[in-house]
Amino acid sequence: MNSFGDTFVFTSFGESHSAAVGGVLDGVPAGIRINLDLIRANLDRRAGRNQTANSKQQTSAMGVSPRALRENDEVEWLSGLLDGVTLGTPIAFLIRNRNARPEDYEAFRHSFRHAHADSTYEAKYGIRDWRGGGRASARETAARVVAGSVAQQLLANKGITIKAELIQVGDETRPEYFNELINSYRAEGDSIGGIIRCEVNGLPSGLGEPIFDKLQAHLAYAILSINACKGFDYGSGFEGVCQPGSIANQHSGGILGGITDGTTLSFRCVFKPTPSTPKAFAQMRNDITANGKIVNGKIANRSDACVAVRAVPVVEAMTALVLANFSDIRLRP
Amino acid sequence: MNSFGDTFVFTSFGESHSAAVGGVLDGVPAGIRINLDLIRANLDRRAGRNQTANSKQQTSAMGVSPRALRENDEVEWLSGLLDGVTLGTPIAFLIRNRNARPEDYEAFRHSFRHAHADSTYEAKYGIRDWRGGGRASARETAARVVAGSVAQQLLANKGITIKAELIQVGDETRPEYFNELINSYRAEGDSIGGIIRCEVNGLPSGLGEPIFDKLQAHLAYAILSINACKGFDYGSGFEGVCQPGSIANQHSGGILGGITDGTTLSFRCVFKPTPSTPKAFAQMRNDITANGKIVNGKIANRSDACVAVRAVPVVEAMTALVLANFSDIRLRP
Amino acid sequence: MNSFGDTFVFTSFGESHSAAVGGVLDGVPAGIRINLDLIRANLDRRAGRNQTANSKQQTSAMGVSPRALRENDEVEWLSGLLDGVTLGTPIAFLIRNRNARPEDYEAFRHSFRHAHADSTYEAKYGIRDWRGGGRASARETAARVVAGSVAQQLLANKGITIKAELIQVGDETRPEYFNELINSYRAEGDSIGGIIRCEVNGLPSGLGEPIFDKLQAHLAYAILSINACKGFDYGSGFEGVCQPGSIANQHSGGILGGITDGTTLSFRCVFKPTPSTPKAFAQMRNDITANGKIVNGKIANRSDACVAVRAVPVVEAMTALVLANFSDIRLRP
Amino acid sequence: MNSFGDTFVFTSFGESHSAAVGGVLDGVPAGIRINLDLIRANLDRRAGRNQTANSKQQTSAMGVSPRALRENDEVEWLSGLLDGVTLGTPIAFLIRNRNARPEDYEAFRHSFRHAHADSTYEAKYGIRDWRGGGRASARETAARVVAGSVAQQLLANKGITIKAELIQVGDETRPEYFNELINSYRAEGDSIGGIIRCEVNGLPSGLGEPIFDKLQAHLAYAILSINACKGFDYGSGFEGVCQPGSIANQHSGGILGGITDGTTLSFRCVFKPTPSTPKAFAQMRNDITANGKIVNGKIANRSDACVAVRAVPVVEAMTALVLANFSDIRLRP
Repeated sequence: MNSFGDTFVFTSFGESHSAAVGGVLDGVPAGIRINLDLIRANLDRRAGRNQTANSKQQTSAMGVSPRALRENDEVEWLSGLLDGVTLGTPIAFLIRNRNARPEDYEAFRHSFRHAHADSTYEAKYGIRDWRGGGRASARETAARVVAGSVAQQLLANKGITIKAELIQVGDETRPEYFNELINSYRAEGDSIGGIIRCEVNGLPSGLGEPIFDKLQAHLAYAILSINACKGFDYGSGFEGVCQPGSIANQHSGGILGGITDGTTLSFRCVFKPTPSTPKAFAQMRNDITANGKIVNGKIANRSDACVAVRAVPVVEAMTALVLANFSDIRLRP
Repeated sequence: MNSFGDTFVFTSFGESHSAAVGGVLDGVPAGIRINLDLIRANLDRRAGRNQTANSKQQTSAMGVSPRALRENDEVEWLSGLLDGVTLGTPIAFLIRNRNARPEDYEAFRHSFRHAHADSTYEAKYGIRDWRGGGRASARETAARVVAGSVAQQLLANKGITIKAELIQVGDETRPEYFNELINSYRAEGDSIGGIIRCEVNGLPSGLGEPIFDKLQAHLAYAILSINACKGFDYGSGFEGVCQPGSIANQHSGGILGGITDGTTLSFRCVFKPTPSTPKAFAQMRNDITANGKIVNGKIANRSDACVAVRAVPVVEAMTALVLANFSDIRLRP
Repeated sequence: MNSFGDTFVFTSFGESHSAAVGGVLDGVPAGIRINLDLIRANLDRRAGRNQTANSKQQTSAMGVSPRALRENDEVEWLSGLLDGVTLGTPIAFLIRNRNARPEDYEAFRHSFRHAHADSTYEAKYGIRDWRGGGRASARETAARVVAGSVAQQLLANKGITIKAELIQVGDETRPEYFNELINSYRAEGDSIGGIIRCEVNGLPSGLGEPIFDKLQAHLAYAILSINACKGFDYGSGFEGVCQPGSIANQHSGGILGGITDGTTLSFRCVFKPTPSTPKAFAQMRNDITANGKIVNGKIANRSDACVAVRAVPVVEAMTALVLANFSDIRLRP
Repeated sequence: MNSFGDTFVFTSFGESHSAAVGGVLDGVPAGIRINLDLIRANLDRRAGRNQTANSKQQTSAMGVSPRALRENDEVEWLSGLLDGVTLGTPIAFLIRNRNARPEDYEAFRHSFRHAHADSTYEAKYGIRDWRGGGRASARETAARVVAGSVAQQLLANKGITIKAELIQVGDETRPEYFNELINSYRAEGDSIGGIIRCEVNGLPSGLGEPIFDKLQAHLAYAILSINACKGFDYGSGFEGVCQPGSIANQHSGGILGGITDGTTLSFRCVFKPTPSTPKAFAQMRNDITANGKIVNGKIANRSDACVAVRAVPVVEAMTALVLANFSDIRLRP
């Protein structure tokens, strides 16, 4: 449900407007010094904050919403560390939700936002936190980034590095044009999707399990659990469908039979454009309420024009959580 | 490792040339009459057998190898059933491996087949069953089909139906041309990839978990665990990257925020062409041995020209196992 | 590791002298109003606080140490509740460790307390929080009581009640003499063990799993996980060894073949006396240090004279967590 | 449900009168040569067979029923082994139920045996295999012994030995008198309970988890899952309740704070007398039927007079499964 992994376990909690989001990380080996700066840097990337430039400039640069930039991400550490070194006990942390403005969402108390999880949550639970998406909000990914950053440090100590990057926005694959394209969608009150590629270097061969717990299966599970992600492929992937066997087999993506082969691990994932855009609402004019009535819908331009931009460190975090879950990695000298 | 699910659990066992493949299915509700004909029919689809036509015709029809058609798939039921009705106790079954011809694989005792899992298994275990891929063989999917067929019956009793079909072979998307295309690759000693679409109807809304256990995450995990599968997407998927938010949000794929929305569930998956083709071997001429030496490689035309053809019932089986794992479904009247 | 349950999951965190102890409770059904007073009352029982009498009097009454009475137990709720009602999302909470006085434990920074977990923690982790037992401290049970109290409310809504009581102290089985006996041990700087009986009423028949997950197996697992617990039995238990089959079978303890039979569930558990008493230290005079050297040991009379007294609400809490983990109970109307 | 362990997983299947009982053992490291003779010897102990004496003599010697001695225990290995060496893949095995005589149980098709699991199974599943206890039969423990014997070999390779023995029958603690006492109960058509002590030598210190997964908690869970077991204690156990802290702390039982301390691990468990004795039936005269009617009950003297005798190798098997589940043990050189 809200836990990920079985030997290196991250349990996540928090709604977008509860007191805090946070998590508990269990199974972290004892004696590791945690670099808090690295965690902060990843949280900044997730928030769309550029540490060297001023934030206003950056907002327009990558279509990140002003709301995201204002997010508070200060991590409070509750347990599991003594003088900055892991004790082997659960590491609990929280990030306060200081920027709570439930009045912005008052209109949704009794209505569902189109193409959002509002209606499915109501179907499942019969109750929901209508303030900003509640548990379904992407705010929850901040906790993933904290946990994943701890995992990344553990992996780095074993020589394993993870690097994700945005490789496509709409049908554009040249990164130098991404900024302009995203801004043009934002200017129109619209949004656009993106594709991220993630590569992992330094993995030993022999990692993964042959049948159900193939490495690619765990990666797909982890990546598809990220909000707005609609697909995952690795190696030759979907594009490999057109290549005959004599060619396609050259691109393993780093995995054969579910187990690493010692080459670079490489996978892609696609993020849909956010559906909560002014343009989308203008087209629909109204929203379907919980009790079947129609109400007028209106939405401020609060969302990112391309959510894939800020998903990059989340993809890295989830990849790190998958890999740190292998005791083969955690326990090797 | 070799178990799938946590409340409706399928444990799989068997190498391609051990005494048997089979499994144990735990968590099946008591009192369900099992239709053995349906299971046999799905096993026939997986083996490429056509129940109405003669087998030779069919072989050429869909590029299925003669070896596959000869596979024995008779299921022996060991426990969990009394007079054909489930007892609520574990259902164990096995399928004997009668067609074992290890001498066909003698050449691979000390060498690794290129782009197969031979080398990664050796890296992981330091030992492997070299006879026909051992545990990594697609023979293992027969057990998945048996277990999945039981799950499908459970779901059918709740009004939920699963239907997968091949929608693309190479760059061809017109089914009436698939046969010819596959045969042309087979004739050249080559192979080609394919894309399968799977749809599920009758699902209640409210199914799935919001954070890590989103329904799409579990489906991706299940599907990517199938041999030769290289990717998964749902709803607008990878192709949706080019559509702006105001359009793309129309295609949920049946899931919002990880939870079913009551519409048809729809996902795709891609299967790579098998790398063990005569043409591939002719190009490479040789194979890398376990101890670094080079040996001449040779392979009979024993593999399917398009493994996606026979993966269709396996995709249905894994989908059924994912859905039957939801106690919301199993327990509802 | 630090999580309990699989569908109603309690994840615990915190050292005795970290910033906080606390937990995350996952799988709580949505729409349940939580009674915070009940939780507070259980925390008071665990701390040895008597809500009607003044605390000083009570300390001597049941041999609870003054340190325990001073413990802060104010619960801060972080997520999962909206206006006091559960959302179906994880309920995270913490209790600050305000009473931290690491200087009291300075002597143990480089030495191990006899018959405590200090040495085994060091063996396992190579590092430990030497301040007051760290993770091994009974302080951790405060979080169990909070989580268990939520579970108890859920169960109470289904008509299931849990009641534990101290039935033996030393060889004394008459409750009216417990107080005096415990005080006599405390006066001598010594401690004594106790036996708790726990009964559950209102359980439906048919609860439990037949083989490994027998109800008694889960209860034993839960109860033996409590600090200082050395044994568990149910029904006729250890004492039944002397009764022939024609008599003993009358005492099922509420479970047959691992499954509830609809009668009162009844089990016992035994708690050893705390080993950290002034008398024990006086006898030993010294303690073995981490590096093999001998140091003089000295200890204030900070521990309870009979830890079983305060274990009573912890036994109830763990029993509630076991039972709430059954979806049969959680989901029934 | 029917699986035990999470990294070294034993999945059990089979009813007493289905085609077979058996199991799948997952997580066994590759490259271990399995000694089948050791497994056979443990199955003989479980069946009450004495390998050196003739079986008739032995029956009267320890009160084992003639039915038990006739049990077939030939193990058929299905997968996971190549030339007697583990492959790292699941080891599946079965034992055929050749001695099936359902007519012996015909009387119980529509009635429940008193103090047996018949009624609770019916309450849980609404259906049951009435032939000899079905899944609840102690026949299932044969599969546990096979799996546990594999685990024992794995442990023996690491220098860890497990030894259980019967230390009490009724109130008799002198082994030389056990035989006579059990026979006297058998002669009267009655039965008696017993206590088993199990000791483990060679365990490294630092094994176990501090909070919920304390080693004693896992052992209690495993042992209480054995049919007819009513209690578990370790170290000073229930008897320690009368010893003051200054004495009792000398008896750790090999575990401190849930983690091994490097000394001998020692625990006890108690087994109730079987309730299905001629004397018990004579006293009751009748049994309560499924639909509330009363029928005359009659039972042949088919049960053991002291089930604890044959539980000894089962206690060893479950202990081995608990310990082999620790990756610290499995993976160390």
